[in-house]
Amino acid sequence: MRLSVQRRKGDIEAMRAVVVREPGPEDVLTVVDRDDLAPPPGHVRVRVRFAGVNRADLLQRLGLYPAPPGSPTDIPGLEYAGEIDAVGAGVPESKIGERVYGITGGGSYAEQVVVHERETARIPDGIAERDAAAVPEAFITAYDALVLQARLRPGERVLVHAVGSGVGTAGLQIAKALGCQVVGTSRTASKLDKAAPLGLDAAALVESAASLEKAVRGAFPQDIDVVLDLVGGPYFAATLPLLAPKARVVVVGLTAGVRGEMDLGLLLRKRLTVVGTVLRSRPLEEKIQAADLLRRTLSPWLARKMIKPVVEAVFPLAEAAAAHRLVASNATFGKVLLEV
Amino acid sequence: MRLSVQRRKGDIEAMRAVVVREPGPEDVLTVVDRDDLAPPPGHVRVRVRFAGVNRADLLQRLGLYPAPPGSPTDIPGLEYAGEIDAVGAGVPESKIGERVYGITGGGSYAEQVVVHERETARIPDGIAERDAAAVPEAFITAYDALVLQARLRPGERVLVHAVGSGVGTAGLQIAKALGCQVVGTSRTASKLDKAAPLGLDAAALVESAASLEKAVRGAFPQDIDVVLDLVGGPYFAATLPLLAPKARVVVVGLTAGVRGEMDLGLLLRKRLTVVGTVLRSRPLEEKIQAADLLRRTLSPWLARKMIKPVVEAVFPLAEAAAAHRLVASNATFGKVLLEV
Repeated sequence: MRLSVQRRKGDIEAMRAVVVREPGPEDVLTVVDRDDLAPPPGHVRVRVRFAGVNRADLLQRLGLYPAPPGSPTDIPGLEYAGEIDAVGAGVPESKIGERVYGITGGGSYAEQVVVHERETARIPDGIAERDAAAVPEAFITAYDALVLQARLRPGERVLVHAVGSGVGTAGLQIAKALGCQVVGTSRTASKLDKAAPLGLDAAALVESAASLEKAVRGAFPQDIDVVLDLVGGPYFAATLPLLAPKARVVVVGLTAGVRGEMDLGLLLRKRLTVVGTVLRSRPLEEKIQAADLLRRTLSPWLARKMIKPVVEAVFPLAEAAAAHRLVASNATFGKVLLEV
Repeated sequence: MRLSVQRRKGDIEAMRAVVVREPGPEDVLTVVDRDDLAPPPGHVRVRVRFAGVNRADLLQRLGLYPAPPGSPTDIPGLEYAGEIDAVGAGVPESKIGERVYGITGGGSYAEQVVVHERETARIPDGIAERDAAAVPEAFITAYDALVLQARLRPGERVLVHAVGSGVGTAGLQIAKALGCQVVGTSRTASKLDKAAPLGLDAAALVESAASLEKAVRGAFPQDIDVVLDLVGGPYFAATLPLLAPKARVVVVGLTAGVRGEMDLGLLLRKRLTVVGTVLRSRPLEEKIQAADLLRRTLSPWLARKMIKPVVEAVFPLAEAAAAHRLVASNATFGKVLLEV
């Protein structure tokens, strides 16, 4: 275990990180040298190899989504894959060298990130770090939303909005792994085409919230039991008429806006449940539960190829700005990664 | 067991019932004679002694809330207390004479109502039919909403809108029985005064949705874990800023309107859950579960005086119109009953 007391940049005891120099456009992302991190008791330091880029990082860069307490304030990055290269007190030295992946409150756009030992999960043998890095945020978010929040049951009918997104492609695969039928929406026909090999049962090309109901009914006439909503805004209200009695809507993204309208009469008559959820701000014990999801469910599925990481592009750390531009373009299918 | 094949009104084999002659104001409620009811296999016939009046009955009278399939189309009434006076095939004759209460999809504004044997619960010894009749709809709705839908835990902070209503007074008492703190709202100061002896910890006199947040914070500064919302409309959106992370809002009434707005950003950040619920349209198996609630939880609490039925007024069956007028006036505290 190396502990640094150096303070000067450029020193050998340093790591590279991408920081948000000041809130602003993509070019505020800058590679800098930072002191090595020292893992406190119970924690490990991970030598990051790949870090996923998430929409939350773009908001953080704009100054709209501050890091939660305990996370680096200026280094974005909510997930990582790499190997443990230092351990804090109480963590066995034998952990060093273990390949791990997971989510964190921030800081993974860097060669090093420090996380609680129990927040990490082992990468299954035979799975490359590059593929592993595309899993944590997307698949934990989707599994948590569909199974833990919406209590998805095998055979139910699932609507995934923005099915071409990282969480969308994950939600589609998880619902299929549970024996559900899935209809997906996108504003881009080619994304719907790419989702077909992942098991998509019906595809709805959606041009606006006003045409949503008709487009989904045309592709999939049956009522929907569970919605994974990654867009919000006017799509939220437009989704409600599609729902079956006792349906559950989990809202995990708001790319179409934060103002939702709701027909409360429909809410009562259909006995609907609406849940909002976000991973990042969760306290340690829930981050550990999220890591348990990786360990107990998602890692075995990954090892058995029941779920497949979907990677659109990989950028070197120095090109984080280009990675952000690509994510903002909405032209991606699946995940964008940084190679560290 | 008496089975009637008579068809003529006024015959000795007849019962009195209040029917909705046609959709309209209170005076469309008319007492008529109807043929005796014959309980089918597995069902019992209850000689109703008291029937609760609910807001849903007012909507049904106006033609806005049709009875669910299998319920009488023109006789309102969602709850009853009385005794079994006939049984269908498969139900032991020894049941005849048992004092029972419960909810039904409709038809309890009558001397007879037919329900599935398992939809009824025994009235505890020592509890008068009059008091028992004030329990089923209000307490099942409130218990189902708070405990089964919102998963209320002991010690949590509960906000009950319209705390002077039938469901409000029930929700208040249930939350107190579970060791929770309760803040209640009303637009009428005297109702808040009357709620104090039922255990209300803090009272917020609310003049409009715009003043809701300030009124509740002034009475009860802490964030709220669970909301029992009986009013909806603009109060729904106004309630969200009062909530703690992971709070649950159960909407069971919409006296203030069906249009809800929602800050979806708040929904995500606070990880809120919103549930709409209604008892009446539930299928048989859920009505049986509701009766189980009476049997296993509410009847024992009632027998031990942990909960108290709250009766505002009792009208004879022939004065159902006056009962409807009183409920519509909003001047009631607790339940209005019909004596049959």
